[in-house]
Amino acid sequence: MAISTQVQLVRRPQGWPVPEDFRTVAVELPELGPDQVRVANAFLSVDPYMRGRMNDAESYVAPFALDATMTGGSVCRVVESTSADVPVGSAVTHDLGWRDVAQGDAAQFRVVDDGVPLSAYLGVLGMTAFTAHLGLLQIARMQPGEVVFVSGAAGAVGSMVGQIAKLKGASRVIGSAGSPEKAALVQERYGFDAAFDYKDGHVFRQLRAAAPDGIDVYFDNVGGVHLEAALGSLRRDGRVAVCGAISGYNDEQAQPGPRNMARIIQQGLTLRGFTVPFHTQHYPAFLADMTGWFTSGQIAYDETVVDGLDHAVDAFLAMMRGQTTGKTLVRL
Amino acid sequence: MAISTQVQLVRRPQGWPVPEDFRTVAVELPELGPDQVRVANAFLSVDPYMRGRMNDAESYVAPFALDATMTGGSVCRVVESTSADVPVGSAVTHDLGWRDVAQGDAAQFRVVDDGVPLSAYLGVLGMTAFTAHLGLLQIARMQPGEVVFVSGAAGAVGSMVGQIAKLKGASRVIGSAGSPEKAALVQERYGFDAAFDYKDGHVFRQLRAAAPDGIDVYFDNVGGVHLEAALGSLRRDGRVAVCGAISGYNDEQAQPGPRNMARIIQQGLTLRGFTVPFHTQHYPAFLADMTGWFTSGQIAYDETVVDGLDHAVDAFLAMMRGQTTGKTLVRL
Repeated sequence: MAISTQVQLVRRPQGWPVPEDFRTVAVELPELGPDQVRVANAFLSVDPYMRGRMNDAESYVAPFALDATMTGGSVCRVVESTSADVPVGSAVTHDLGWRDVAQGDAAQFRVVDDGVPLSAYLGVLGMTAFTAHLGLLQIARMQPGEVVFVSGAAGAVGSMVGQIAKLKGASRVIGSAGSPEKAALVQERYGFDAAFDYKDGHVFRQLRAAAPDGIDVYFDNVGGVHLEAALGSLRRDGRVAVCGAISGYNDEQAQPGPRNMARIIQQGLTLRGFTVPFHTQHYPAFLADMTGWFTSGQIAYDETVVDGLDHAVDAFLAMMRGQTTGKTLVRL
Repeated sequence: MAISTQVQLVRRPQGWPVPEDFRTVAVELPELGPDQVRVANAFLSVDPYMRGRMNDAESYVAPFALDATMTGGSVCRVVESTSADVPVGSAVTHDLGWRDVAQGDAAQFRVVDDGVPLSAYLGVLGMTAFTAHLGLLQIARMQPGEVVFVSGAAGAVGSMVGQIAKLKGASRVIGSAGSPEKAALVQERYGFDAAFDYKDGHVFRQLRAAAPDGIDVYFDNVGGVHLEAALGSLRRDGRVAVCGAISGYNDEQAQPGPRNMARIIQQGLTLRGFTVPFHTQHYPAFLADMTGWFTSGQIAYDETVVDGLDHAVDAFLAMMRGQTTGKTLVRL
């Protein structure tokens, strides 16, 4: 008889999540039915969007159910199978999330190529980098020669946005991050032309110093004062890909928007929000680009790996506090 | 010797403009040079965007110069001409604005068809209705069958937006206005499916009552709580044409933006700002549509006419206070 250890949400967090909002349960798994697989999870993805799903209100996607196991991106190997298409030993990704052993119909599991480290399928070859590629190229429609600003630039998505922008011909890419060390990383390792520590001074002034003639595209991971600074810097026909607003995710009261919304009219700006589930038609174009860049070593890619399902909540909180670099993963 | 009486801006208004911010001067006009015309203005347009131009900060367009005559849309007849292309008696439009007699190079004056009342060229056949057509169809990309919400619906632009939406196949058009009488006008005369007095209650709740299943397009003339209410009502892939923010034009401090900016991500919304000078390539499509509708009587069109250049400032202030209906004009 197999047991699956799983993390469940038992209470909707007020502000910052606390350990009491979760519980760990042991679930007895039934025998596999026809065309099913059982997997031993190797890595779980923890992502900022999960904070929104912990609330009752409609977020990017439906809220997490209470007293149910947290879902999310995972990568693993098949340990038992009644499916000819997904045999034992296959590397697969799935969305069943925060559990050490998962099982279900084979159609829920996507077989991936075994030639790269499995964790890549949650980051550089997965939803994280797809978010960056989609937002920059399809939502903000970045053109060669443009000036791009990215917030959360040391993060999993932000570090990809900057590198993709350079590979696609941006004339200048500027990033903001939450410490001097991260700002240095953004510039030295991820190849941004400029980066600053947003805690070190007024965001608009630091952005203006890095892009004196303004910006054309802003990839927004954080909202708040960053969005206001970007609106103040965007040139005519500038575009914002509104991807995240992590600065406000744990606020109990929603914060007001930018005071300079009038710039949207003045400069003819476009702000467009997006979440990946509604744009999957662009996934093949992403995968073609990224597989080429990744295998030829043109993409710098970092992970913060936390060991053990019992540290998944800690990993999530560390990421939300800006204490991790690159893609945050839980290794089982 | 000809004298032109002109209204000049002499001081940048703090908050609401006051008479002391302007002065009236008499300017002696030189003889016409070659290929020039002199006109006797018939109507001046007063428009909300002019408030932005009175500030020193960059607005939609460059600020009005101090101690210079206020510019703006005008329509008139040529009284003297050295141009073969623009003979005496021609009806013309120009942007020389707040003066009873204007003159200059013939190229500054556009000859218009004499078959409709001249004032129409400042409203239903001019920039006002072009703004509505452009914003609704090119910026917000309204599709047949969609639900449309318009603020400032009794105003010159708003009343056009709603009528154009219906003519282009919107399934439901909702307007907000600043009094019960205006709301009735919007519904009864301009043919909106529903209208409400925004001063009569919470805007979001009134909008929700009028559009229980949400809206697809919001044409924003006012900003502020209306924009917040619209963001709260927009369905997936909804679009906002950001045209104006009259609710904040006379604030001395810029107001914060909507508290529900996260809806932009959640619903995949697009907000796009615009001003007509950057989209003139769409003017012919507008004129073809509108000439047909107007001449066949499919457009209800209202004007508030104030007589005399010495009342131009009063007309402007009355419009900003919501005391006028339809297009506000000064007749000379």
